[in-house]
Amino acid sequence: MKITKSSEFRVRFNETDPLGIVWHGYYITYFEDGREDFGREYGISYLDIKSHGFVTPIVESSCKHKRPLKYGDLARIETTFEDSPAAKMIYKFKIFNPEGELACVGKTIQVFVSHENELSLNTPKFFADWKARMHAENNFK
Amino acid sequence: MKITKSSEFRVRFNETDPLGIVWHGYYITYFEDGREDFGREYGISYLDIKSHGFVTPIVESSCKHKRPLKYGDLARIETTFEDSPAAKMIYKFKIFNPEGELACVGKTIQVFVSHENELSLNTPKFFADWKARMHAENNFK
Amino acid sequence: MKITKSSEFRVRFNETDPLGIVWHGYYITYFEDGREDFGREYGISYLDIKSHGFVTPIVESSCKHKRPLKYGDLARIETTFEDSPAAKMIYKFKIFNPEGELACVGKTIQVFVSHENELSLNTPKFFADWKARMHAENNFK
Amino acid sequence: MKITKSSEFRVRFNETDPLGIVWHGYYITYFEDGREDFGREYGISYLDIKSHGFVTPIVESSCKHKRPLKYGDLARIETTFEDSPAAKMIYKFKIFNPEGELACVGKTIQVFVSHENELSLNTPKFFADWKARMHAENNFK
Repeated sequence: MKITKSSEFRVRFNETDPLGIVWHGYYITYFEDGREDFGREYGISYLDIKSHGFVTPIVESSCKHKRPLKYGDLARIETTFEDSPAAKMIYKFKIFNPEGELACVGKTIQVFVSHENELSLNTPKFFADWKARMHAENNFK
Repeated sequence: MKITKSSEFRVRFNETDPLGIVWHGYYITYFEDGREDFGREYGISYLDIKSHGFVTPIVESSCKHKRPLKYGDLARIETTFEDSPAAKMIYKFKIFNPEGELACVGKTIQVFVSHENELSLNTPKFFADWKARMHAENNFK
Repeated sequence: MKITKSSEFRVRFNETDPLGIVWHGYYITYFEDGREDFGREYGISYLDIKSHGFVTPIVESSCKHKRPLKYGDLARIETTFEDSPAAKMIYKFKIFNPEGELACVGKTIQVFVSHENELSLNTPKFFADWKARMHAENNFK
Repeated sequence: MKITKSSEFRVRFNETDPLGIVWHGYYITYFEDGREDFGREYGISYLDIKSHGFVTPIVESSCKHKRPLKYGDLARIETTFEDSPAAKMIYKFKIFNPEGELACVGKTIQVFVSHENELSLNTPKFFADWKARMHAENNFK
């Protein structure tokens, strides 16, 4: 069961390196852009989460590169939320070059930390509610 | 009357662009590195200022480029604080390439904003005290 | 006589600092985004210029900050090309916050350098042609 | 059999986010700094490799976060090269906070691509020679 959001972005000049391709660290930024676009679409953005008293720091991220992106490329990122019983937010990413070929795949894992700076070991109620709403609205496929 | 601090830094791969030279926006980062190195040396860093109840946002910055820096260059920045009667911190910068040639000159202006988010129209006492101490210690040349 | 292009952009989480506002160095990135959006609209992008045998390094940039931008803000940048007899590209920028208030003004100056790495002291023909075309199409106001 | 290089670095203001901690994407930059410091120490930097006709793009990177780093922290990175029969460069990283506690662990994998843009399926001779020299000099532990 998962929900996917597709977003386009354009590669900036300053994101490319002397080899003329995107420097690998910028994919982490693209993943964040994808997550935030997902969050705005489905009501689970950083600010939504903050309004419920939590922040969600990244505890793990990874990226496998298949093909380079170049300056000016109009690329596409697919951001996929995967349901999980753990008190975590798990997103997977696929980035495609302008030809539609897979440029990279990635993954991030976030935990819930309360405003009192405590790690939440259980799924926060607001997040369980959000998932229930996503199921009720048939957003999970 | 001014105080100058000289600091070395090495150009990172990801700071260079497809032309093989430092992307111009990174000079703003080098200026901040220079300011902070100055601040640690003379007791006027971001955290020092914060401990006195102020933050010092940048209200103006400029940079003129003379020669490019390249990946791996061990460059040098001269950060100069200039005394001024205004309630501002004014820094000037000179960056030199490994051959000692001038790569760029720049300037930043900061104001004092209290933790109550009010712009300070007068020089804060802690800053006047700091300048008096710099004079007493003959740091101004 | 000038040509202006207006573009929207959204402030990224990683562009904001511990004060919760955009770190001042990122405005240089927004200026570049504005220039490139202008370039794609009017046929004078980095890649257009490169196809004519030139690159256009920034030799001067400046920024004056009026109001902060915050995470998530949907801001707007006005990028204005000003006609000039010099062998330079001069752009001015105005960035507006979501309330339409002026957040900052800036300026960049670029020169023309040939692929043989020589500074062009005269306006390159392709650039004079582009300006003539912009006049003919009544893009200058 | 591995070789480790330890390097210190200071957390920049612009590397921290509204939560007051280093934005997770910057760890990729710290890993690159660690690799380059290792490369300068042992003669296997980007420019050394380039002089032998190869570039070494990152094909995989990952990071697990244990504790945050804060603005101004003087942190330490341990960069470890692990010998492997594959035509790859595999580095592992450990970053420690000023108290000596583990802040994160990471890993990057690079492949060898010739200047003719071909992926090297076998270990390039210069790299085998480098490893032999590292063994002869008892750098591997």
